[in-house]
Amino acid sequence: MSEKQTYTVVEGGSITTPKGFKAGGLHCGLKKTDRNDLGAILCEVPATAAGVYTTNVFQAAPLKVTRESLVNGTLQALVVNSGNANACTGEQGEADAYEMRAATARQLNVAEENVAVASTGVIGELLKMDAVRSGIAGLPEKLDGGAAGAEEFCQAILTTDLVKKECCVKVSVGGEEVVIAGAAKGSGMIHPNMATMLGFMTTDAAIDGEDLLNLLRAATNVTFNMITVDGDTSTNDMLVAMASGLAGNSKLNRLHPDWDNFAAAFTHVCQSLAKSIARDGEGATKLIEVRVSGAVNDEAAAAIAKTVVGSSLVKSAIFGADANWGRIIAAVGRAGVPVSPERVDISLGAIEVLLQSKPVAFDEEQALVYLQKSDTVLITVKLHDGEGTATAWGCDLTYDYVRINAAYRT
Amino acid sequence: MSEKQTYTVVEGGSITTPKGFKAGGLHCGLKKTDRNDLGAILCEVPATAAGVYTTNVFQAAPLKVTRESLVNGTLQALVVNSGNANACTGEQGEADAYEMRAATARQLNVAEENVAVASTGVIGELLKMDAVRSGIAGLPEKLDGGAAGAEEFCQAILTTDLVKKECCVKVSVGGEEVVIAGAAKGSGMIHPNMATMLGFMTTDAAIDGEDLLNLLRAATNVTFNMITVDGDTSTNDMLVAMASGLAGNSKLNRLHPDWDNFAAAFTHVCQSLAKSIARDGEGATKLIEVRVSGAVNDEAAAAIAKTVVGSSLVKSAIFGADANWGRIIAAVGRAGVPVSPERVDISLGAIEVLLQSKPVAFDEEQALVYLQKSDTVLITVKLHDGEGTATAWGCDLTYDYVRINAAYRT
Repeated sequence: MSEKQTYTVVEGGSITTPKGFKAGGLHCGLKKTDRNDLGAILCEVPATAAGVYTTNVFQAAPLKVTRESLVNGTLQALVVNSGNANACTGEQGEADAYEMRAATARQLNVAEENVAVASTGVIGELLKMDAVRSGIAGLPEKLDGGAAGAEEFCQAILTTDLVKKECCVKVSVGGEEVVIAGAAKGSGMIHPNMATMLGFMTTDAAIDGEDLLNLLRAATNVTFNMITVDGDTSTNDMLVAMASGLAGNSKLNRLHPDWDNFAAAFTHVCQSLAKSIARDGEGATKLIEVRVSGAVNDEAAAAIAKTVVGSSLVKSAIFGADANWGRIIAAVGRAGVPVSPERVDISLGAIEVLLQSKPVAFDEEQALVYLQKSDTVLITVKLHDGEGTATAWGCDLTYDYVRINAAYRT
Repeated sequence: MSEKQTYTVVEGGSITTPKGFKAGGLHCGLKKTDRNDLGAILCEVPATAAGVYTTNVFQAAPLKVTRESLVNGTLQALVVNSGNANACTGEQGEADAYEMRAATARQLNVAEENVAVASTGVIGELLKMDAVRSGIAGLPEKLDGGAAGAEEFCQAILTTDLVKKECCVKVSVGGEEVVIAGAAKGSGMIHPNMATMLGFMTTDAAIDGEDLLNLLRAATNVTFNMITVDGDTSTNDMLVAMASGLAGNSKLNRLHPDWDNFAAAFTHVCQSLAKSIARDGEGATKLIEVRVSGAVNDEAAAAIAKTVVGSSLVKSAIFGADANWGRIIAAVGRAGVPVSPERVDISLGAIEVLLQSKPVAFDEEQALVYLQKSDTVLITVKLHDGEGTATAWGCDLTYDYVRINAAYRT
């Protein structure tokens, strides 16, 4: 984040707030409940677009289709289903993903190569294409440029998520107001390593395509790639950004005087969505934020922050409101990067528990109250080895995580 | 394991079965309950010895002392306490570890530099040295060359373990019977990366010191380093082997005609202890064994096997008896090593669930019964990319893991 914040959060804003976007969602029958399971975003013009994807070797069929659509750097629509990941479904799965793209293009009257496809849900089962077909046929009348359409879309992409995730900010570019928004889903199998679960960004900025892609990658690295729920990286992670260009701003590129402001605003949306995903991790009761400073470099800081926030023992201790800093330092020490073992400081919130690698006689009662009452638990690790910094987000490990995942398919 | 097994498991054997060893344990006051918390092993002669240690950057004080003792490749005694890890305890912690070594040497009448020290328990609290001192003073009368002494020792090294872990085998070396035994503790913070938790091996073999160290390292790599309970690597992991040489065998080295038989027997003890640790992981109800074959090389196979067995989602699914192979293939795909995504076979026990990366229509009821009834769940992954193989062991993720770790210190 820049020191002087030049963007403003738009309360009640959504992915349809940037000019040119409609969204919608409906229930077509992929989920067993009557919750929405199919959604779409439509831009009134072909939008400059970019995507980042999971690093998992096994990539779901929709990722292949979306990559193909994004070769020309342009999208006008995207269709997404929940309830079924269309992953490890072989040739039939690919054919189904292509059919989703073709049907959406036909229904929304846009070019097939300008449609992205995303899926989330159970791995290894074929899509019920009858449901998908009838759902896509019903999409046009559901699309809406207001808050209602965005709400239906956000509901359609959720799986075990408890709450929808969205964020909207505005920022001035060359005197014009530009709006950036995003929606995401998360919950389980969350240890993104390139993109995150499903994330969709819309903006009305005019922006160079290559710079949009580079910004998406840079923002992803410090936001979506810095969260973990359970260390598992999905086969379906995908983050797609669409820029309609309808804000009327002078076209953004890296040399534009407002580039840094725009980038900060864009990164804010990514960070807000990423934190929402971590906070709503399966079974979570708390957001855990780990700030590492003084590492030999930023990469080392990131490795340490992610190792601490991903430690099952640290996560269990936070759930139990146990100020067990021994588990934090043990995680720091196994992150696989250089650390001087004699000069580590650790704090829980404002409570110093370790100074220069020596235990501080802290007030256990105060620590218990902090851990019990805080909606967000802040763990600060200072290494005094260099200038590297990073922040990572995760959640506590609870009985409900086990309950949810012991019987996900049933 | 060798194809023709030349060693025999000694039922009821223990670390005192090899000639020359006594062991014992007692309660000195480090644990809140009256369970044993201090133990020792004594050899009647200085034994050829070797050790391997945690890769965690933060290494507990006793590791420093033990490394120092092992510089000369000889040990005659070792002392171990549970209830307190003596880790992150600064200069006082080091002084305490040295005092443990000196007091043990004095009481057992051996040279100080021939005594190893190990600790396990809570990190960051100073040892109650009054309790340790009185405990060490009481050790000599507890030492016993029979099964009772070994039993007391095994009890003394446990923390949240439910059962003691020991194994004993015999093998013929140059016509003489040689006995190899081991005792270990595990339970939580189990993702060894060099050695494991605490493991102590005794043998009466005469063996070259350098070859003993190399064998210890090689055996550790395919046994203790292939288990995981929660992905957390302790600050206190240590595996020490002592060889009394009293079996009267012609001295073992890598060129000895019975080397392979001895190495197989030694590795069997390590594997047996490692599997016991995984099976008794905190909260575990099942052992999970993941066998990977056809990887590009053994290192890739090991990375995949450990990623699968360490996946919280796979572990939760096994707890829930859910044949969710999608989580297995997702873990294979994020292991960070090359895999051809089109030709993966996965089986649960004898039930094929994925063939050439395509779902097999298996009998869900049969899979449910297999997962519910099996004490050990076998996951087989065949990659058809090369000749690399590896096996890893872990356990399911249960409500009890969360319960135990949400309130470990209290």
